[in-house]
Amino acid sequence: MHHHFKPSHFFTTLGSHEPVLTIASGDTVSTTTVDAAGRDHTGEQITERGNPQTGPFYIEGAEPGDTLKISLDVLKPNRPTGWSAKILASNVVEPDGVKDLPILSDNERIAIWNVDTDGGTASLELATGKLELPLEPMLGCFGVAPARSQAISTATSGEHGGNMDYRGFRQGATAYFPVFVPGALFCLGDGHALQGDGEIVGTGIEISMDVSFTVQLLKGKRSTWPRGENEDYIFTAGNARPLDQALQHATSEMLSWLCSDYGFDTLTANILMGQAIRYEIGNVFDPAYTVICKMPKRFGNLRLEPQTHP
Amino acid sequence: MHHHFKPSHFFTTLGSHEPVLTIASGDTVSTTTVDAAGRDHTGEQITERGNPQTGPFYIEGAEPGDTLKISLDVLKPNRPTGWSAKILASNVVEPDGVKDLPILSDNERIAIWNVDTDGGTASLELATGKLELPLEPMLGCFGVAPARSQAISTATSGEHGGNMDYRGFRQGATAYFPVFVPGALFCLGDGHALQGDGEIVGTGIEISMDVSFTVQLLKGKRSTWPRGENEDYIFTAGNARPLDQALQHATSEMLSWLCSDYGFDTLTANILMGQAIRYEIGNVFDPAYTVICKMPKRFGNLRLEPQTHP
Amino acid sequence: MHHHFKPSHFFTTLGSHEPVLTIASGDTVSTTTVDAAGRDHTGEQITERGNPQTGPFYIEGAEPGDTLKISLDVLKPNRPTGWSAKILASNVVEPDGVKDLPILSDNERIAIWNVDTDGGTASLELATGKLELPLEPMLGCFGVAPARSQAISTATSGEHGGNMDYRGFRQGATAYFPVFVPGALFCLGDGHALQGDGEIVGTGIEISMDVSFTVQLLKGKRSTWPRGENEDYIFTAGNARPLDQALQHATSEMLSWLCSDYGFDTLTANILMGQAIRYEIGNVFDPAYTVICKMPKRFGNLRLEPQTHP
Amino acid sequence: MHHHFKPSHFFTTLGSHEPVLTIASGDTVSTTTVDAAGRDHTGEQITERGNPQTGPFYIEGAEPGDTLKISLDVLKPNRPTGWSAKILASNVVEPDGVKDLPILSDNERIAIWNVDTDGGTASLELATGKLELPLEPMLGCFGVAPARSQAISTATSGEHGGNMDYRGFRQGATAYFPVFVPGALFCLGDGHALQGDGEIVGTGIEISMDVSFTVQLLKGKRSTWPRGENEDYIFTAGNARPLDQALQHATSEMLSWLCSDYGFDTLTANILMGQAIRYEIGNVFDPAYTVICKMPKRFGNLRLEPQTHP
Repeated sequence: MHHHFKPSHFFTTLGSHEPVLTIASGDTVSTTTVDAAGRDHTGEQITERGNPQTGPFYIEGAEPGDTLKISLDVLKPNRPTGWSAKILASNVVEPDGVKDLPILSDNERIAIWNVDTDGGTASLELATGKLELPLEPMLGCFGVAPARSQAISTATSGEHGGNMDYRGFRQGATAYFPVFVPGALFCLGDGHALQGDGEIVGTGIEISMDVSFTVQLLKGKRSTWPRGENEDYIFTAGNARPLDQALQHATSEMLSWLCSDYGFDTLTANILMGQAIRYEIGNVFDPAYTVICKMPKRFGNLRLEPQTHP
Repeated sequence: MHHHFKPSHFFTTLGSHEPVLTIASGDTVSTTTVDAAGRDHTGEQITERGNPQTGPFYIEGAEPGDTLKISLDVLKPNRPTGWSAKILASNVVEPDGVKDLPILSDNERIAIWNVDTDGGTASLELATGKLELPLEPMLGCFGVAPARSQAISTATSGEHGGNMDYRGFRQGATAYFPVFVPGALFCLGDGHALQGDGEIVGTGIEISMDVSFTVQLLKGKRSTWPRGENEDYIFTAGNARPLDQALQHATSEMLSWLCSDYGFDTLTANILMGQAIRYEIGNVFDPAYTVICKMPKRFGNLRLEPQTHP
Repeated sequence: MHHHFKPSHFFTTLGSHEPVLTIASGDTVSTTTVDAAGRDHTGEQITERGNPQTGPFYIEGAEPGDTLKISLDVLKPNRPTGWSAKILASNVVEPDGVKDLPILSDNERIAIWNVDTDGGTASLELATGKLELPLEPMLGCFGVAPARSQAISTATSGEHGGNMDYRGFRQGATAYFPVFVPGALFCLGDGHALQGDGEIVGTGIEISMDVSFTVQLLKGKRSTWPRGENEDYIFTAGNARPLDQALQHATSEMLSWLCSDYGFDTLTANILMGQAIRYEIGNVFDPAYTVICKMPKRFGNLRLEPQTHP
Repeated sequence: MHHHFKPSHFFTTLGSHEPVLTIASGDTVSTTTVDAAGRDHTGEQITERGNPQTGPFYIEGAEPGDTLKISLDVLKPNRPTGWSAKILASNVVEPDGVKDLPILSDNERIAIWNVDTDGGTASLELATGKLELPLEPMLGCFGVAPARSQAISTATSGEHGGNMDYRGFRQGATAYFPVFVPGALFCLGDGHALQGDGEIVGTGIEISMDVSFTVQLLKGKRSTWPRGENEDYIFTAGNARPLDQALQHATSEMLSWLCSDYGFDTLTANILMGQAIRYEIGNVFDPAYTVICKMPKRFGNLRLEPQTHP
């Protein structure tokens, strides 16, 4: 079934909020997201800032111990401008270099980018000329309700997903989340027209979006951290500080996944990961950082073939 | 001038050792490196293990405050087998997962890979069949003598380079090192037939190599951390623990480089880096970890053009 | 006013839950706390495990921007046995040492200590004889409701307090918390008969307690992180991972406090902190670690005198 | 035998330098150290700055696998003034707070303290009056030559000791170092009249000293990290970044020490450490941070009794 959902209110925590819609495994939802500051496709601020989320969507039959599969069918900026911060975050430069970062007055802090969805570019007029970058629309913050009755700020992330700010969660990619509460309570928001690795100015090019996603419930499939998949890679996301710990979570989750789903014994998975793994940095700005551990689906003569996926 | 140098002894520190050859800016050197365990192209161990280095090469005229440019012209494994460890390092998995890693007896710990340089593959026979991965020969450890009369183990890395274990230091790439002592005292070794990101089993596929490199001395050009360049990116390397600090060094070095050489004012460089930077993880195993900060040379309408490079 | 409150239900998040009692600034509350596993003074489990909290107590007039002062008047274990885990946490030993930690079966994992409140000792029978340690009763987890409608697990900590597991929060000490929501919503629990620094086996000697505390509302006094005070020191608590970041928060909070309340200009506070500060590690086990930054009240000829405290 | 040694040159690395004196186990050496900037008891700079070391002293019979025991018999500042930096290091405050630290011109950066050795105080005239702190003379940097022919800067520390900047290395304390090279090659320097925890302005009160120490060689006793002992505690030092890793080294070393020398089985040592350990932060400024893990010698009914010490 294909639902068309128009959000009327938003949440800035991922938690056990009243669902806005109940859907079944296999359903597709087309909806919209506001930008990180709560602004919609007209640019009007319709809710408080802080990565407000569309949802939660209640998935029928989802229970703790299941995994939710989300196909990101459409991620399309729906207005002609996005905004970004301009200055590197204090925590991504050498401590002694913080003093040398530019200091801007309040009304200079935000850059307004022209976003040309048809042309596929975001551009900004600078003193030195026009800067034009290719669009790579992505979702910065999405996930499910966490365990233990928590309500966790959409400024941060965890096992339940959240504000991972990973460039790889783009149109065509698939995300997987562990289910912690009945119905999973999936939410999404914080679209970026594009973003550098690490979200090191604290924002991507923030924009409202038209979004379509399809849900599949993987009954009885256990996972611990968010996972994902695209044409070329399977990947796992670890969310924590410091980066070292985020990397540990992502690496352990990949080891576990390769063994449970792809037919590897532990020793073979260890050997293979040593020579074939790729890492990416999602964000190095939010309260929890995000490290991505990627395994190519095809690598030399290797073809990853899921053995147990539904 | 093109030198052909046959090494007779090796060092396992980067320091102010007696040079083995004096060369001029513009010269090319063809030589060989032993593998991390001190084994040469015949497989014989001819020096103690621990990333033994060929060199040091004394570059005429190099002084503290200069930068050394090294073009990696040829990196070619020169024997038909390489070796790797098999088990993920304890520090790259979740602490509670360390206990679940496979435990191997001493004589099971090393995997011997067939390296087919012509075919471009490394392969390993496993119980589950043959694993075959594409070659990506790279230098794990190379650099110059550090400052302050130090002699730093080739197990680790720093501002002087060293054991960065970054996959991007491959044939065709260029590396830049700050000069800390007269003559720079460049060394190289620790070839890998290929390696995963992070060197998370503690080794790549370790192998001896035939190597050619060309040196250029950039007089009066200051740099702080190792830098590099390939067809598509310029990049900087930060070497430290934790990854967060390595990333800070790499990011600050990139900001500095964009402003000093590529004609960006600080504010524009900040804005651009926020949306365009890419990070890679060199190693997350050695005493100092390595994070790479990359800037595309072409990105949208952007073309990085050096303004001040010799 | 002195309230005697008997808890009937407990929370395992700090959040905006329905208050159990409304009190005024200056009031004292005598109540009880269950242990980390939800067991009361009889040893019966009366609520789910996970540092269940007594409260929340609504403090009349408390608003965001105020600070809540909590005097820990009485912290007294109220049963003759406590329990602890036995094995060092995987994250506090060298990664390669995790494999060498003892492995215990489920029914061996918990040590039961005799707690002699009159004698002031906790003792445990070991194969090698009786181990007897002096009691130092403390509160592991207490604090206020966090901002942004969050509900944060009592397994962790933050600006709102929570599971800091700091030995210094003992009888006679004072704690200060920023107020984030109307009424502050103060909660407390997780008593330890004693605990080593860092809570490195993941528990202290866990026990239920009789507790009395007195509340004072410091209207308009701003603070960012939990603070405390005892006869000899004022101190601040930073809660984050890694320890480095927790230390940064605690240090910045102390600098801010010395300048706002004790009449120091910034430069003098910097000079003094450099030569006089003391650090302690609260916990290095929970999702957020806790570092304490302490300033002696008397140090040489120095007497810290609050200038602005109510 | 009691040697009186007058240094004529100094080293700013710990490495395999030519020894200045050969001594036997049991010998005492009385000598002097210059301050961190190379200034002697007259205030004259007689060698380059950077924690210049007196030594190395060659201990007869010391070989890799032994442990060197150093009794710090006398640590006495030998001039009436010491100096300190004034501003908190950028890495010990919150990144966003770096911009708010005072900025001083070059000639304002150093505070000159009056050091009254007889009165036991260091004092500084401030705008707000005289600041007077009690002396606690200590050695910031001392240790032995590292393994693998390394020469490691006295700015940092490692398994060989070095620039740990721990307040507990004071007169009356004992330090233990693993021996990595024949003769051990012990060096010492970088005296502080006193210092706050963490050395968070980057200096203690830096001063030259008269020093006497007694050496004992513990043949065949293995250790991995520096250890120490005073009247009340045994302790271990872990040197690394981040603090988390330094703590892991110190904790593992303590576990190992309790089992090898004090008659504990591993399980009992784990249980005891969980409830009795204390941590201190040596430095959080140098390239490697230092965390100290302490075990009380008397704790409740516990008396630590070495079983195997010579």
